[in-house]
Amino acid sequence: MPLYGGLEAGGTKFVCAVGSGPDDLGELARFPTTTPAETMAAVVAWFSEQHARTPLAALGVSSFGPLEPNVGAPLFGHITTTPKPGWHNADVVGPLRKALGIPVGFDTDVNGAALGEYRWGAAQGLDTVVYLTVGTGLGGGGLVGGQLIHGLLHPEMGHMLLRRDPQLDPYPGFCVYHGDCFEGLVCGPAIAARWGKPAHELPPDHPAWELEADYLAQGLMNIILVLSPQRIILGGGVMEQAHLFPRVRRRVQEKLNGYVQKPQITEQIDAYIVPPGLGGRAGVLGAIALAQLAEAAHSAGAQA
Amino acid sequence: MPLYGGLEAGGTKFVCAVGSGPDDLGELARFPTTTPAETMAAVVAWFSEQHARTPLAALGVSSFGPLEPNVGAPLFGHITTTPKPGWHNADVVGPLRKALGIPVGFDTDVNGAALGEYRWGAAQGLDTVVYLTVGTGLGGGGLVGGQLIHGLLHPEMGHMLLRRDPQLDPYPGFCVYHGDCFEGLVCGPAIAARWGKPAHELPPDHPAWELEADYLAQGLMNIILVLSPQRIILGGGVMEQAHLFPRVRRRVQEKLNGYVQKPQITEQIDAYIVPPGLGGRAGVLGAIALAQLAEAAHSAGAQA
Repeated sequence: MPLYGGLEAGGTKFVCAVGSGPDDLGELARFPTTTPAETMAAVVAWFSEQHARTPLAALGVSSFGPLEPNVGAPLFGHITTTPKPGWHNADVVGPLRKALGIPVGFDTDVNGAALGEYRWGAAQGLDTVVYLTVGTGLGGGGLVGGQLIHGLLHPEMGHMLLRRDPQLDPYPGFCVYHGDCFEGLVCGPAIAARWGKPAHELPPDHPAWELEADYLAQGLMNIILVLSPQRIILGGGVMEQAHLFPRVRRRVQEKLNGYVQKPQITEQIDAYIVPPGLGGRAGVLGAIALAQLAEAAHSAGAQA
Repeated sequence: MPLYGGLEAGGTKFVCAVGSGPDDLGELARFPTTTPAETMAAVVAWFSEQHARTPLAALGVSSFGPLEPNVGAPLFGHITTTPKPGWHNADVVGPLRKALGIPVGFDTDVNGAALGEYRWGAAQGLDTVVYLTVGTGLGGGGLVGGQLIHGLLHPEMGHMLLRRDPQLDPYPGFCVYHGDCFEGLVCGPAIAARWGKPAHELPPDHPAWELEADYLAQGLMNIILVLSPQRIILGGGVMEQAHLFPRVRRRVQEKLNGYVQKPQITEQIDAYIVPPGLGGRAGVLGAIALAQLAEAAHSAGAQA
């Protein structure tokens, strides 16, 4: 079995690993996200050492965004319009491809996680799935008919418009682009700003959680109606509050109000809205899955 | 070039034609939508006569829904939970397949129209597109990576939740499931109920249209963020008000507020949100395209 490199490029750290799947994934190496030059140098050095020891067939990068995942685009492999200082139009794929000389796959962290769950986790056997992460930010990715969603760019589900009743929730949201969009109302920093303490300090009976579940259910309802996923996987720090799952499921059913008559929603919603099957390794395993896709595309191109 | 049958099954009429694309599409035959037995008998008789004259390679049906488009499902080929009297769980594909003995493709009217536009119309050369119809109802379909969206069922974009300010718009919406969802606020009957006269009697400077454009832009924004389409096609009776297009485009730009930095949206939105390229024949041409897909799937199955 060939070995692959996986890089999960996050806003606070870059996580690196080598393997071919969940069963042989090596130890994770972590580097803080400082400047592109410094962080990329550390990551390039680490993968170069691995590659010298045992050649890697390909590398996959699942990254924070927005980014350019379309191979033909001039900025392919770059993080693009991020507000993160120093990372605007940062080239992530370039230095890795130059140093290693192997195919490098590149996609959003959530598309990567969706692909990993599809290959080895909670979305096995399905072909149309969504992975949503609710943490420092809120992002969504997924597959339709077994293919990662790209289109114009890539999904940006965190910025959908939701309904907020200012009487019930005077907090105006913190998104710099849209105020009270999905991410602006629901992610960890929004919870902390609204209630004056971080999510993990709010007990399960705190009113924060019913409000949170309502907003999440609104977002999920829109996703179900636009994409018709066969399963939705919810990951990220905020979703470690396991009591959120039953609340969200019930509210999705209430809001859909019987319109989508499929047993997955009306009877078996516990298996429809689920936590990641790969746990905390979903990100880096997603990157490994992206590496395998990049290798397959490279082989197909070489044969064509 | 083999000939195909195309059936556009609508809530008021069933439209039938024979051809292989826009250039050789024969005359359209129309039958009123009464009971399934009566309407299907008329349609079966018409296609049987065509098939006896020149054999058809396959038939495609693009239909009102909800319906079951997944070939493996027990109710494949049926319209399912429609509120339309008599049509609940009506079998559309069965009688046609039995009478003609050829492969029959089946999908939503909007997935069909999206496929027709992708093959011959406003979405040629792209792979991820959305077709939205705004008329008696509001429905959306599309392709991702060149494949029609099915997943759990099929898209039901008309039932997304939008923001309504009751001060500005006291009309509570008319959707029996969700009240003021996208369809409940935006389709033709909602316009007529809100303003007391049908859409085509409201002049372009009537306040109805800015409100309509705002709701449409909300729905389009959510679709852009979830699916990342390369183009959005807006058809249906309400969109024959051509002055809606510039209003909707401007509001989509305002609402996204620069977040999706792609020239298609920031600079060339006139070519991003467009009317159908196939005009009024989009529906039945979509059905012809579904017939061609069904024939290809049948051939692939026979070879496997």
